[in-house]
Amino acid sequence: MEVAGWAAMNESGKVEPFILKRRENGVDDVTIKVQYCGMCHTDLHFMKNDWGITMYPVVPGHEVTGVVTEVGTNVSGFKVGDRVGVGCIVEACLDCDLCHRSEENYCDKLVLTYNGILSDGSVTYGGYSETLVVHSKFVARIPDSLPLDAAAPLLCAGITVFSPMKQHGMLQSGGSLGVVGLGGLGHIAVKFGKAFGLRVTVISTSPAKEKEARESLKADDFIVSTDQKQMQAKTRSLDYIIDTVPAKHSLGPLLDLLKVKGVLVLVAAPDQPIELPSFPLIFGRRTVSGSISGSMKVTQEMLDLCGEHNITCDIELVSTDGINEALARLARNDVRYRFVIDIGGDSN
Amino acid sequence: MEVAGWAAMNESGKVEPFILKRRENGVDDVTIKVQYCGMCHTDLHFMKNDWGITMYPVVPGHEVTGVVTEVGTNVSGFKVGDRVGVGCIVEACLDCDLCHRSEENYCDKLVLTYNGILSDGSVTYGGYSETLVVHSKFVARIPDSLPLDAAAPLLCAGITVFSPMKQHGMLQSGGSLGVVGLGGLGHIAVKFGKAFGLRVTVISTSPAKEKEARESLKADDFIVSTDQKQMQAKTRSLDYIIDTVPAKHSLGPLLDLLKVKGVLVLVAAPDQPIELPSFPLIFGRRTVSGSISGSMKVTQEMLDLCGEHNITCDIELVSTDGINEALARLARNDVRYRFVIDIGGDSN
Repeated sequence: MEVAGWAAMNESGKVEPFILKRRENGVDDVTIKVQYCGMCHTDLHFMKNDWGITMYPVVPGHEVTGVVTEVGTNVSGFKVGDRVGVGCIVEACLDCDLCHRSEENYCDKLVLTYNGILSDGSVTYGGYSETLVVHSKFVARIPDSLPLDAAAPLLCAGITVFSPMKQHGMLQSGGSLGVVGLGGLGHIAVKFGKAFGLRVTVISTSPAKEKEARESLKADDFIVSTDQKQMQAKTRSLDYIIDTVPAKHSLGPLLDLLKVKGVLVLVAAPDQPIELPSFPLIFGRRTVSGSISGSMKVTQEMLDLCGEHNITCDIELVSTDGINEALARLARNDVRYRFVIDIGGDSN
Repeated sequence: MEVAGWAAMNESGKVEPFILKRRENGVDDVTIKVQYCGMCHTDLHFMKNDWGITMYPVVPGHEVTGVVTEVGTNVSGFKVGDRVGVGCIVEACLDCDLCHRSEENYCDKLVLTYNGILSDGSVTYGGYSETLVVHSKFVARIPDSLPLDAAAPLLCAGITVFSPMKQHGMLQSGGSLGVVGLGGLGHIAVKFGKAFGLRVTVISTSPAKEKEARESLKADDFIVSTDQKQMQAKTRSLDYIIDTVPAKHSLGPLLDLLKVKGVLVLVAAPDQPIELPSFPLIFGRRTVSGSISGSMKVTQEMLDLCGEHNITCDIELVSTDGINEALARLARNDVRYRFVIDIGGDSN
């Protein structure tokens, strides 16, 4: 099947229209008419070959929402017309211990939604395209109460912060959460924190974000991380920190904000190693943990909770003509808080 | 009370005989005739002012065993003649949440056994001395089955590895443990691992240690950490790693050895930040945790288990005349596996 999409052909950081081939819908597959696709920083990393693993042409996009147009004969969970989403992963072995435990996002045979190689040898193309064909295991249901545009970033930004919040027991803790960095991941971490009864402190290098953090995102507190006096005043005050900063930085000053036995979760992936001073880790029995995306089970759980609590992302909707302009702004972190491409053109 | 001891007067890394003053035994105190004191690398760090916080003269020593010679009127747990030990901590507030939860080793008013300042304003002097006076809260009982010399390093090296093993559920797990570095802490981590039914792999830069690790410490496996082929063959094979290496190093290759959701515990305190690459942390949902010493409750539990399982440290006993020679060898890591000073002179 030939599908219209947008691909980066080289390291320029731009996309151009591209006709890609997708498999016909198989017995386990769902075909989706893509309506919206969020723009994740990872898209830029792959487009620019920052990690040296890009296979051009690359069709980015792993925050996809749309409507089911075809289902395979083995598929029982979806029917034509369903509102669905696809995130970062489109294949795993489904037969290892991790897959059996619904932790297929750590399966060592996992295949990413784009720039991956499926078990049939074909390269995966992501959601910057009009149609997706995906194994039904990797399709989630979008609750009726959520708009498909503002829900799209939940499929990557959302699950990336929700999964460790669930894993480390934050959701029911009533504790205090620090969110480092107020971008795509950070703003949704603040929303989750507030929705689930945590006391949320935003930690940012940028004093200008305080008003927005407190007023529109309802953060309880705000710390300018470069202000040592503010940082010291909050020593040992937080139960959890979610660190969304994708640049090299030291964890020392952040660890000092944690109570004894506090947990810091890294959800961004700086390409340089992070500096981990041992003293604040050791003297506070603190923990640094990592997390990538989430399983489909937890993704569905998150979406259902977002439906109940009416949690969506704050987005800037862009038309398919505006993808390159949005990519350029994304590279400058000039976005509040996530670009979503109107692939289906419904907003025009 | 005047007490004979050995103090470092400057950054030379040597001690000399020194007469120090201790308080008279108070109502909550226990006075201990010191028999043995282990030599920890931390002693050298303080003697050489590596961390810039040394108050000379410094009397090192926080792996102390001896016999009770006096008890205060409020002390019910000890009597004259009891065989006891003192570790890294001699005072805490005993009134905060952490102290109430038997986690006084993380109390922010904790006072170290030497180079600390007690609430009465006096400086603490450690176990390189003939007599200690300590609040009974910070005194542990040494089981009769354990010799006081080989038990002494349990008070720091032992509890430093035992406490995180207990905290992270390793003791009853039947899982696989990697021990990085085969020194004072590493060798006792191997012994604990084997005693509690774990499969133990020693990870070392030094191939020469394999025979000793397997034959005398009964390690199940041995990996030369500089051999990439060996390291790769063991990818995702371990449930836990205890990292005892006190030098700057990258955690990346070690994290790759852990299974998904595996835990690496740092117990040494390199003075340079450790390199933490985010990818192996994030893609394996792995955890890096720190731990310092242990509470008195867990210390006593460890000593009792050591008594049952007959676990002691492998030591080289040195006389008080040989402290400086031993310190020089310790600085070169030339010790198997812990020097213990025969303060009481019983072995002569």
